[in-house]
Amino acid sequence: MNRIILISGFQPFGGESINPSYEAVKRLPEEIDGFRIEKLELPVVFGRAAEEFMERLKALEPAAAVSVGQAGGRKGITPELIGVNMDNDRIPDNDGNQPVWELIAPGGADGIFSRLPVQEMTDAMAEAGLPASVSTTAGAYVCNDIMYRVLAATAESGLPYGFIHVPYVPEQVKDKPEEPSMPLEDITKGLEICLRTLIKALDK
Amino acid sequence: MNRIILISGFQPFGGESINPSYEAVKRLPEEIDGFRIEKLELPVVFGRAAEEFMERLKALEPAAAVSVGQAGGRKGITPELIGVNMDNDRIPDNDGNQPVWELIAPGGADGIFSRLPVQEMTDAMAEAGLPASVSTTAGAYVCNDIMYRVLAATAESGLPYGFIHVPYVPEQVKDKPEEPSMPLEDITKGLEICLRTLIKALDK
Amino acid sequence: MNRIILISGFQPFGGESINPSYEAVKRLPEEIDGFRIEKLELPVVFGRAAEEFMERLKALEPAAAVSVGQAGGRKGITPELIGVNMDNDRIPDNDGNQPVWELIAPGGADGIFSRLPVQEMTDAMAEAGLPASVSTTAGAYVCNDIMYRVLAATAESGLPYGFIHVPYVPEQVKDKPEEPSMPLEDITKGLEICLRTLIKALDK
Amino acid sequence: MNRIILISGFQPFGGESINPSYEAVKRLPEEIDGFRIEKLELPVVFGRAAEEFMERLKALEPAAAVSVGQAGGRKGITPELIGVNMDNDRIPDNDGNQPVWELIAPGGADGIFSRLPVQEMTDAMAEAGLPASVSTTAGAYVCNDIMYRVLAATAESGLPYGFIHVPYVPEQVKDKPEEPSMPLEDITKGLEICLRTLIKALDK
Repeated sequence: MNRIILISGFQPFGGESINPSYEAVKRLPEEIDGFRIEKLELPVVFGRAAEEFMERLKALEPAAAVSVGQAGGRKGITPELIGVNMDNDRIPDNDGNQPVWELIAPGGADGIFSRLPVQEMTDAMAEAGLPASVSTTAGAYVCNDIMYRVLAATAESGLPYGFIHVPYVPEQVKDKPEEPSMPLEDITKGLEICLRTLIKALDK
Repeated sequence: MNRIILISGFQPFGGESINPSYEAVKRLPEEIDGFRIEKLELPVVFGRAAEEFMERLKALEPAAAVSVGQAGGRKGITPELIGVNMDNDRIPDNDGNQPVWELIAPGGADGIFSRLPVQEMTDAMAEAGLPASVSTTAGAYVCNDIMYRVLAATAESGLPYGFIHVPYVPEQVKDKPEEPSMPLEDITKGLEICLRTLIKALDK
Repeated sequence: MNRIILISGFQPFGGESINPSYEAVKRLPEEIDGFRIEKLELPVVFGRAAEEFMERLKALEPAAAVSVGQAGGRKGITPELIGVNMDNDRIPDNDGNQPVWELIAPGGADGIFSRLPVQEMTDAMAEAGLPASVSTTAGAYVCNDIMYRVLAATAESGLPYGFIHVPYVPEQVKDKPEEPSMPLEDITKGLEICLRTLIKALDK
Repeated sequence: MNRIILISGFQPFGGESINPSYEAVKRLPEEIDGFRIEKLELPVVFGRAAEEFMERLKALEPAAAVSVGQAGGRKGITPELIGVNMDNDRIPDNDGNQPVWELIAPGGADGIFSRLPVQEMTDAMAEAGLPASVSTTAGAYVCNDIMYRVLAATAESGLPYGFIHVPYVPEQVKDKPEEPSMPLEDITKGLEICLRTLIKALDK
């Protein structure tokens, strides 16, 4: 086991000029509790995001891996419970794909649970005064797509892997006071807490 | 195949005096498009709700079955995509059980897809001017518990079965204007449209 | 006193192709409880909406008047408590005006209360099973602008006048399941109940 | 002019064990930009909150004053535009009063604008990466009650005074992931930015 954790964020999409997921990921320390933190920015494209992630995963052979994505409308940082075998999108991805309730992997499992300590991560963030909860749905967009695909591809190895959704940052919603958001600093702090919690579990 | 559809709603819970799910179910016609509509009111109890539902299912041998439950906070009628193998509750059920991230069926599939035509149901409700969308999470409470258990128990027969969440009715939120709700009449109309859509699929 | 009630709705704005306010207004009966219901469609333009409304008001000399507008994000029908002396908009109106925290009437009252029976209207809608509540803010857009201007212009006569906000209809939010909406039929029914409640108050 | 700013928060209410408004107020520095910051905790009681605030105001003769209160459901820090002459509450205050659409001051103005630089405060908080917006309603509970009463009582002197609403903190909503919240540290930082903005305006 290499003392490496691979963590990915996404490029901006849907007309946004930033994506808080990669903004926060890139602000994470280079090393946490003796683990090298390898950061990766992914395209918001069904299938291709997972491909690029898997390539890097094979090259690095990290001890664990995490993907992070933006979930507009969420009120806190939400580790995801399960990835589902379904693609559906209301807006095209950054390559123009817009699947309508299509199976990701015909014949594959309907859903696959995260292999991250989602409840412990959530508790640790709450302890630190951050809004956080376990989410029971990653949606059916590119975020769920990468989560399901990577969980399926690493099913045999049992690699600790999962997905964490983060809210908008305030500058994305400055003309929409009804939309919840979270300071980038808090998102970054929350992700760091998630990684420390994950490392504690790995080191047990 | 008996020309029967079994449909269940729930008893009130969480301090509420009514549960719009059974209120709407009991207002459905006794017969729709040549199918007898069998109605069942279930206790909000992990495990037991599914047991009572399965008993009735075995006695009736219906052509299809549907469970309906309340999802406070939802803005429309939402057929559920998937049931997940997980129980977790922030408030005790009506028997005092309060599981914390427990597998429903250790060794069972992580998730099982609905066998109802969820997109067609949603489209038909939208066509009729009702707020409706497919939901990708039934939560991890008693609603998801019955959905998962019944889908697991009928996996072999492939019985068309699934779960539909409905919003609060206005009288439940009259002192909380920030909570969305839907007139009971609209909920009932929406469920009837779902059943007609289901019957059309069965008759194909 | 002419047994007439003037009621206005708005044209579509903000990229929408319909505006539920006028859609509902135009579906109201031509007569309610012996009062002729005069309907008016207004442009979404600061100042001009009020001008066109006042012109019609002077021509008709109705017993009471009501303006109706769309409030995206609202969960029910909301009679407004007060109009405020302030224009501010995040998006330009249909004539390209985009005021930033400008007084509507320098030297005018900061706020003016509705002269409609807002609580009675709300109670009557709730009684009929519709989501409804009194709102304490009409915002600072064209809706508030007409409300404030007409209340100011009719301050001396004390004309029963006020504003009612209505939610989106489902077709406006069909790709945004997180947005609340209300069937057009329910909105129309709610407005009719408001008018009946108003007429009852007038006839006292 | 004494180089003092009086700032109040509230005691817990509605079954909560803390109130983020006073929690944040008490964490503010004792001095900001040469102004002494005087902190006051107020009871959540219609009328009495304003009385206790006015007493302290008379004793201190500060250059400006601010009241802060909790607004469950808000997504950011929201300086209020206007106080309205209306009390209405869905739950009793901490003395058991529960007014139903009662005028605060019969014969008084319907609404009175804040005399704080609400837009500048909001811009400064946004600049610092915090969720913030100007709110056009302080509701009709004790928060609005104190805002209206103090604005009315200081109308002649024109004392810079106004009200700022703050969201829940995460620990208040840990079992309700649908409720927005904000870390206490961020709320405190936001209020400090508001005070600095206010002082800049005073010193002009």
